[in-house]
Amino acid sequence: MLRVYLSGEIHTDWRDQIVEGAKDLGVSFDAPVTDHAASDDCGVVILGAEDNKFWHDRKGALVNAIRTRKGIEEADVVVVRFGDKYKQWNAAFDAGYAAALGKSLIILQPPEHDHALKEVDAAAQAVARTPQEVVEILRYVLEGTLPG
Amino acid sequence: MLRVYLSGEIHTDWRDQIVEGAKDLGVSFDAPVTDHAASDDCGVVILGAEDNKFWHDRKGALVNAIRTRKGIEEADVVVVRFGDKYKQWNAAFDAGYAAALGKSLIILQPPEHDHALKEVDAAAQAVARTPQEVVEILRYVLEGTLPG
Amino acid sequence: MLRVYLSGEIHTDWRDQIVEGAKDLGVSFDAPVTDHAASDDCGVVILGAEDNKFWHDRKGALVNAIRTRKGIEEADVVVVRFGDKYKQWNAAFDAGYAAALGKSLIILQPPEHDHALKEVDAAAQAVARTPQEVVEILRYVLEGTLPG
Amino acid sequence: MLRVYLSGEIHTDWRDQIVEGAKDLGVSFDAPVTDHAASDDCGVVILGAEDNKFWHDRKGALVNAIRTRKGIEEADVVVVRFGDKYKQWNAAFDAGYAAALGKSLIILQPPEHDHALKEVDAAAQAVARTPQEVVEILRYVLEGTLPG
Amino acid sequence: MLRVYLSGEIHTDWRDQIVEGAKDLGVSFDAPVTDHAASDDCGVVILGAEDNKFWHDRKGALVNAIRTRKGIEEADVVVVRFGDKYKQWNAAFDAGYAAALGKSLIILQPPEHDHALKEVDAAAQAVARTPQEVVEILRYVLEGTLPG
Amino acid sequence: MLRVYLSGEIHTDWRDQIVEGAKDLGVSFDAPVTDHAASDDCGVVILGAEDNKFWHDRKGALVNAIRTRKGIEEADVVVVRFGDKYKQWNAAFDAGYAAALGKSLIILQPPEHDHALKEVDAAAQAVARTPQEVVEILRYVLEGTLPG
Amino acid sequence: MLRVYLSGEIHTDWRDQIVEGAKDLGVSFDAPVTDHAASDDCGVVILGAEDNKFWHDRKGALVNAIRTRKGIEEADVVVVRFGDKYKQWNAAFDAGYAAALGKSLIILQPPEHDHALKEVDAAAQAVARTPQEVVEILRYVLEGTLPG
Amino acid sequence: MLRVYLSGEIHTDWRDQIVEGAKDLGVSFDAPVTDHAASDDCGVVILGAEDNKFWHDRKGALVNAIRTRKGIEEADVVVVRFGDKYKQWNAAFDAGYAAALGKSLIILQPPEHDHALKEVDAAAQAVARTPQEVVEILRYVLEGTLPG
Repeated sequence: MLRVYLSGEIHTDWRDQIVEGAKDLGVSFDAPVTDHAASDDCGVVILGAEDNKFWHDRKGALVNAIRTRKGIEEADVVVVRFGDKYKQWNAAFDAGYAAALGKSLIILQPPEHDHALKEVDAAAQAVARTPQEVVEILRYVLEGTLPG
Repeated sequence: MLRVYLSGEIHTDWRDQIVEGAKDLGVSFDAPVTDHAASDDCGVVILGAEDNKFWHDRKGALVNAIRTRKGIEEADVVVVRFGDKYKQWNAAFDAGYAAALGKSLIILQPPEHDHALKEVDAAAQAVARTPQEVVEILRYVLEGTLPG
Repeated sequence: MLRVYLSGEIHTDWRDQIVEGAKDLGVSFDAPVTDHAASDDCGVVILGAEDNKFWHDRKGALVNAIRTRKGIEEADVVVVRFGDKYKQWNAAFDAGYAAALGKSLIILQPPEHDHALKEVDAAAQAVARTPQEVVEILRYVLEGTLPG
Repeated sequence: MLRVYLSGEIHTDWRDQIVEGAKDLGVSFDAPVTDHAASDDCGVVILGAEDNKFWHDRKGALVNAIRTRKGIEEADVVVVRFGDKYKQWNAAFDAGYAAALGKSLIILQPPEHDHALKEVDAAAQAVARTPQEVVEILRYVLEGTLPG
Repeated sequence: MLRVYLSGEIHTDWRDQIVEGAKDLGVSFDAPVTDHAASDDCGVVILGAEDNKFWHDRKGALVNAIRTRKGIEEADVVVVRFGDKYKQWNAAFDAGYAAALGKSLIILQPPEHDHALKEVDAAAQAVARTPQEVVEILRYVLEGTLPG
Repeated sequence: MLRVYLSGEIHTDWRDQIVEGAKDLGVSFDAPVTDHAASDDCGVVILGAEDNKFWHDRKGALVNAIRTRKGIEEADVVVVRFGDKYKQWNAAFDAGYAAALGKSLIILQPPEHDHALKEVDAAAQAVARTPQEVVEILRYVLEGTLPG
Repeated sequence: MLRVYLSGEIHTDWRDQIVEGAKDLGVSFDAPVTDHAASDDCGVVILGAEDNKFWHDRKGALVNAIRTRKGIEEADVVVVRFGDKYKQWNAAFDAGYAAALGKSLIILQPPEHDHALKEVDAAAQAVARTPQEVVEILRYVLEGTLPG
Repeated sequence: MLRVYLSGEIHTDWRDQIVEGAKDLGVSFDAPVTDHAASDDCGVVILGAEDNKFWHDRKGALVNAIRTRKGIEEADVVVVRFGDKYKQWNAAFDAGYAAALGKSLIILQPPEHDHALKEVDAAAQAVARTPQEVVEILRYVLEGTLPG
């Protein structure tokens, strides 16, 4: 069975498209918590409030890392989505983390980011433009069949 | 001897400040090629031109990775500087790469990036605001002495 | 599935509280033998008595380590409980062992131990005060939901 | 050359005794910062004050870990001293960390701690009672000669 | 369960013979995509055409590597078949990759390649001449029984 | 589930005793091929005769290593039995191999071998005298219960 | 210092050209024994003749592997040269071995081999056509300067 | 520089012959303590007497392992000598330990041990009959020259 971790942008439905498109492939998908508010506040909600926003963020980021690290470390393929907005440094961080562990990386990005992502792309097995392309890669890798 | 890799922003003199401030500490510093034009074009200048900008960039990024990976893999401490401009995904990628290898990370960043860098910071040993603070950490780590 | 190893204090029911609270999460829990007398004497009961208490203890500690090491090495998350009594060096030893293996650590400790545990906590993803908080972390990590 | 990391108790001169006793052996010694006040405050002195003692401690512990991890990871032998006072959980944490990395461990401890340290001792190559015994082990390991 | 990766030549039915011969052994077999055209073109069919044949090939090779690396990394035994035709450098590359990961290697080759394959064979557990011999090795390894 | 590899002496029924004694524990046992003639001749029977006994032996030993290495690498516990006869260097080799991989070792040996096996025993978690003691260790490790 | 292993074709002076071109860079070069006759016969000359050419070759290949493995494992960069003649499976094997260890690979090959080497190239940081290009990569990686 | 660990038999001058024969090669040799009495008694002489011979031996074996493990782990080549006498299980243990770490092994043994050592030999790069052959292998590996 192929295990795929879906990292990065959380404000569009790209993960749903991939999971739906690959539903017959027997792939096991994992991902970070995509509820933005829960993700930001998980640390302080569970472990107690912080006056300082820096430590508020730290507590949450450390808790989220339990899930993220496990997801990446157990994955065969890590798909990292860079969207149109935000800094998305956590996505690039996940890509670097996955690369250092020798994971197969697929980067899903619009062409306007190509130059800025060249170091990330150079560590990847594929640069895809749409969730559908990611699905087609997964299908080919698992079944050897191409679209069309 | 402590080996320190200085990753990230290449348009200000933060590396020089750290190297100068730490010059009596016997630290061995390494860094990417900071000549922006050379870094972008190294692949095609050496290995031949490409019509397609995507592969132009790929060739260069792959060659640069020879240096970057060696620098990070041999480092005890990886300092990653996030500046005011650009996407800086390669900096976050290096941070993730270093974190996965268990390196000590020091992130050098302005406070306005704190929320966006919370996942990166959570993997780091220190978040510094100035090159001088990085020097003080290196001095403390090596000699046990604090400033002032 | 998340595998969690519950290390440390064996004289209160904190493990039961976590297992009960997380019973709907599909977590696989492991732990050391918590029968204090059996744990102390397993070596000599099985392998023969020793005149010297030092070797009596050694025989038992080596046998217990078969279970402990397997439990930690296979865990995704290691929870280490520091209670009110005893030296608890084996708990701190387990925490260091887990940290070196890159496991996610959750430390469960009363506030009065905060200063003494600062090095251990700095290697952890979370410092919890109650078994309930540990359960909430596990629930959030697995399901993305927060309490309340 | 043998590299030895001297972890644990910082309020007596046991490190000096070992370094002095082994001065003709060509051993390279490393250790944590043993200035208690500097060690406690390094984080806030360099990186800015914290209102909350918990994060004051965290900042310092993270900075100290840069030195500690490097010292342990580069060591051939890790000597861990347990003294008469304090919780010393950081010493036990270092021992566990070193054990997981496959380092040779020498535990230096008074007999009254034997039962409480049995799990730590069971991961060690030697349990010594005096700094002089540690020196004699180092001399034997390097030169094959025994005392007397 | 034994996991076996079948690498190398894709123009004869040697894989079918092994899978058929071992069908009662409970072995899990994996292999590269053996549809030559699909394997050559997978990159550009899914991710877009390339003017330059070099990058056409690169795109496909990177996508195929997702499957190949997973197959080799998860295998207990890697069988590498060298046939009569083509350069077959990818087969030798897979053998080297598997050897560096400590996999058990079985090389399936005709005698005329013996001298040219001596370095590859020296890293292998067996040099077989027919698919049937590979089946007999798998049967012996799993069941301890010999043919005849 | 605990996976146990039973290495060493093949001329008595010690493996059967352990498997029988532990049959209610859900342990997964593995072992080398214990048919002495098959083990000696597997290489030449499958892969062709050798004039030279040295290469006859080599061919067989390489084939047997496919099974042995997998068995040891997947084991949680490696039990190594030293009996009364033969050189048994392969048993000691397996013990060293397992020790380097960080496996829990149980050595099953008669007292007359104690001095000769002291280096092997020093890397083990237990030195047992009878198969029953091995069973009792497995039961304790899995269930926390002691005999009697 | 950069350590470079020069693998592959031994019948032209490409190694000399690289070593000469890089002589001011402080690179440490290593390579297999390039005396073809010595390389083929080292096993039997030192360890005794073999009637069977297969084992004659095996003995030599095993001895040569002592040097090859050390050279690759200690290298930062592995350059693999594919020439015009011979099967060159050992070159591709070395490339796969180096790739699995995460080494930076530079493949030096004529364009007519591009399709056959696509899997090897896809694991490399650069595909060079001349020894001079390899020198220019090394110079850029070390000094950040480009030719011309 | 090549680092060679000389393991095994301690009652003949084979180590001296190798060191003398290789004195111009710049090899760094390491070995266990070869003073039999010191090796047996080092534990109790330094750390205190034991009534029980078993623990007397254990204490010494653990101390000796500090040296042995370091020697093997840092070696490029491990030479293991099997002589005419004694059980020599520690030699076979060292061979297994080195094999699991991927070290190049050279076994130095008389022909009468060939069958008993077949599993050990199958993990080795060479089986030598005399110290002079070991020297010739080292010379060839380092300088590419053959005897005669």
